[in-house]
Amino acid sequence: LIDLVVEDESAGARAKPTAMGKAVRIAVDAMGGDQGPGPVVEGALTAARDMGLAILLVGDRERIGPMVEALQPRLAPRCDVDVIHAAETIGMDEAPAEAVRRKPDASIRVAFQLAKDGRADAVVSAGHSGATLAIGRIVLGKIPGLERPGIAGFFPSLTGRTILIDIGANVDCRPVFLLQFGLMAEVLAAQVFKIERPQIGLLSIGQEDNKGNDLVLRAHDLLKAGVDGFIGNVEGRDLFSGRADVVVCDGFVGNVALKISEGLAETSELMLKRELRSDWASRLGSWLSHGAMRRFKRKVDYAEVGGAPLLGLNGVSIISHGASSPRAIKNAVKTAADMARADLPQRLTKRLAAAQTNA
Amino acid sequence: LIDLVVEDESAGARAKPTAMGKAVRIAVDAMGGDQGPGPVVEGALTAARDMGLAILLVGDRERIGPMVEALQPRLAPRCDVDVIHAAETIGMDEAPAEAVRRKPDASIRVAFQLAKDGRADAVVSAGHSGATLAIGRIVLGKIPGLERPGIAGFFPSLTGRTILIDIGANVDCRPVFLLQFGLMAEVLAAQVFKIERPQIGLLSIGQEDNKGNDLVLRAHDLLKAGVDGFIGNVEGRDLFSGRADVVVCDGFVGNVALKISEGLAETSELMLKRELRSDWASRLGSWLSHGAMRRFKRKVDYAEVGGAPLLGLNGVSIISHGASSPRAIKNAVKTAADMARADLPQRLTKRLAAAQTNA
Repeated sequence: LIDLVVEDESAGARAKPTAMGKAVRIAVDAMGGDQGPGPVVEGALTAARDMGLAILLVGDRERIGPMVEALQPRLAPRCDVDVIHAAETIGMDEAPAEAVRRKPDASIRVAFQLAKDGRADAVVSAGHSGATLAIGRIVLGKIPGLERPGIAGFFPSLTGRTILIDIGANVDCRPVFLLQFGLMAEVLAAQVFKIERPQIGLLSIGQEDNKGNDLVLRAHDLLKAGVDGFIGNVEGRDLFSGRADVVVCDGFVGNVALKISEGLAETSELMLKRELRSDWASRLGSWLSHGAMRRFKRKVDYAEVGGAPLLGLNGVSIISHGASSPRAIKNAVKTAADMARADLPQRLTKRLAAAQTNA
Repeated sequence: LIDLVVEDESAGARAKPTAMGKAVRIAVDAMGGDQGPGPVVEGALTAARDMGLAILLVGDRERIGPMVEALQPRLAPRCDVDVIHAAETIGMDEAPAEAVRRKPDASIRVAFQLAKDGRADAVVSAGHSGATLAIGRIVLGKIPGLERPGIAGFFPSLTGRTILIDIGANVDCRPVFLLQFGLMAEVLAAQVFKIERPQIGLLSIGQEDNKGNDLVLRAHDLLKAGVDGFIGNVEGRDLFSGRADVVVCDGFVGNVALKISEGLAETSELMLKRELRSDWASRLGSWLSHGAMRRFKRKVDYAEVGGAPLLGLNGVSIISHGASSPRAIKNAVKTAADMARADLPQRLTKRLAAAQTNA
């Protein structure tokens, strides 16, 4: 088995020494994000302060430099923050394949190169998720034995959160992809989120073994044979019930699931707000209960995790939502640091190798 | 083109005369429903009173007869309500194929036979949805030119509601199935829900034409060529945004979508209630705003439509949720009556034939 951890010796030799000594170093694509670098820089600086991380902000030095100068003294005065210049940015509306070809100096590419070179332990991007996936695969490569990297998303549940994989990296899957998603997310749940004996479910249209489409029926057998914590089929409602810690599906279904949840949450909030403004009793009532409302919103808010881990590359990376708040970025950077500290790529490689030995 | 309307001459000759003369007659499987016949009978009687319908309650006469005697004088004293005996019931945990073979006198089968014989204009069932689908296909048959019947579900949106088709009848689809779902739901939206020039979207993971899995990419071209109101791809969030009146997807994705929405709505309500009980200000606040909360709940409540139309059979039928309230059943019966009044099976047949002529 090849040792593929980011901090191998050769990488360490090239690593830039940091003021914090062994602090985990996170490369953040500061040019991603729908509202420009502002929320990304603010979130990254806050993460540096709260978790003693070193931050490499990648992007246009002319824009990011002044932001760091303005924010760092207040937010993270004693932290190790560097700006790494990247001349280009990939816009949210660019075709990934073309952007990859045409922009060798794009901020997300430079960020992944820092990880490849051992100068960063993880990458966080709030930019173009398709381009992030494509460039991550090109620059870092896949771990050995893996068919396809997958993106893990998080759903708020009654007992904490549910991990859904894949939420959009692979729209057409073969059964073995789903098996490997399950194996990888099981490791993520256990090693990064410290869940003992995670429960892994397969997303279907009924709990019975014989329910599902052709892909799910065939994947069911593979997961049953290969994944320790497999509990069988689960249904859409189980993303929120806490029945499973990890739910496996193909990237088309996962992406639809994510966007339905976001859409329903946003629409419900809008409808509820409208109703709560419609008469004086409701207005007073909602003012009195705004603390409870805020706590509720925080529980169902995706910003609590802050991003979606991209699993299966030779390195750690997190894809954040383009509209991420500073708090979402802060939490994404924290999750990325936890993944790096857990040596996740090495653990995933070992898990896949063990599964293949068993097969 | 064969005339397949339920009320054709031969059927009319066999039709049981009702006290209301030309009243629309709805056969209701009274044995469906998780809580037994009670809510179903109550909902059906209320519908009879509110909409001047004739109701045929199908099931165990020994159980349903006394319920009708007890409820009718209060709920629907001057309405035409009959009990049609059926000796058997299909349980929610039975395998559809076996139940179909083994129980020729099941209540849902007797209900469909009433429609087949022209004694009922539509069927409403809150029972086993798989068995309802299977028996509906056997007894009534598909309309000419149709590949597969589809089930249409409803999602609350900012502007009203969105129809999603298919929500579970077909877990593995070919592109032409999706085209025909779009054609059928367009007619449903226009003729039953009176939406002028309905907008039809294809559920995908991005609005661009080139986003989607293999099925969606191929279905896109068919829908673009064949469906008048086709607006291209829509995303999960658009089930609630009001961007489309109809959203088309395969039955696996649709079923997951439905159960995710139900699950998130239930979980959110539970979490919010918990928070609203956590301190006195919130408790008082939620008491003051309970009117707004109730109006909000009613807007997002699936009971407002009450059931899912099964499109593509030679007859009208609605599949209701097993946990349906009397209000849900009442609304399902109302929707079924609207579908019957609109001669939906005949209109769908004509629409499919026109699409084939164009192709």
